[in-house]
Amino acid sequence: MSRLLKTVLGVLAVMAMSGNRGEALAQEDALVVRIAEIEVDARFVKEYAAALTEEADASVRLEPGVISIFPMHQKERATLIRILEIYADRAAYESHLMSPHFLKYKATTLKMVKSLRLVEMHALDTNAMTQIFAKLSDSR
Amino acid sequence: MSRLLKTVLGVLAVMAMSGNRGEALAQEDALVVRIAEIEVDARFVKEYAAALTEEADASVRLEPGVISIFPMHQKERATLIRILEIYADRAAYESHLMSPHFLKYKATTLKMVKSLRLVEMHALDTNAMTQIFAKLSDSR
Repeated sequence: MSRLLKTVLGVLAVMAMSGNRGEALAQEDALVVRIAEIEVDARFVKEYAAALTEEADASVRLEPGVISIFPMHQKERATLIRILEIYADRAAYESHLMSPHFLKYKATTLKMVKSLRLVEMHALDTNAMTQIFAKLSDSR
Repeated sequence: MSRLLKTVLGVLAVMAMSGNRGEALAQEDALVVRIAEIEVDARFVKEYAAALTEEADASVRLEPGVISIFPMHQKERATLIRILEIYADRAAYESHLMSPHFLKYKATTLKMVKSLRLVEMHALDTNAMTQIFAKLSDSR
């Protein structure tokens, strides 16, 4: 069983068994959640999107601790990128930074990125996230 | 089987069977994806978070077409809220706007919200989303 699944099931189990939301929150607080706000040079919109989706795809597929790398761009301005990143914990994030797919992405896109801001977020309701997973799994 | 699951499995099936990414993208394009950027009056941070998580929880649980209502606040400024919203299609979003939990949330929080901006997004890689679901389901 993956570490991610253990984390998610762990949170659910603690909440179900003990009814103690405090304990569940202690585990949820390990999550690293953030929104990357990136502006891309208009000349490289397509190349950047290709490099980013390749990296996001590999990260979620190969790294158990990468829960989400969900890339978007604004409909009205394709140069404005937003990425919702969720890691199981700080160690998973640090390990991600050393992965070959991340290092390749970083090297490839360096010249395409005009600005980058990483905004640390706090998930108000990780229950919402586990529910999405549970809904899909239960319906199978 | 829920409509959401059908959508997700549909995308996966089209991609697996035909290898035709164009067809899969046609379905993905039905998705409504956006980031709500909200600033809350500092006096109401706690009440607002409670109302929002209750609404997010009910929406994902009760509405098959609501794929994600994932609420966050900035770690450094708890008054700055971001919500990643994903709906299966425009009809699912419009039905959500008429749901009792959404109308209750809207009425309760009207006086707490200083500003609200809804930024329409395009998901660069919905494959990343289906992978997250698939990873969890497969490990069970």
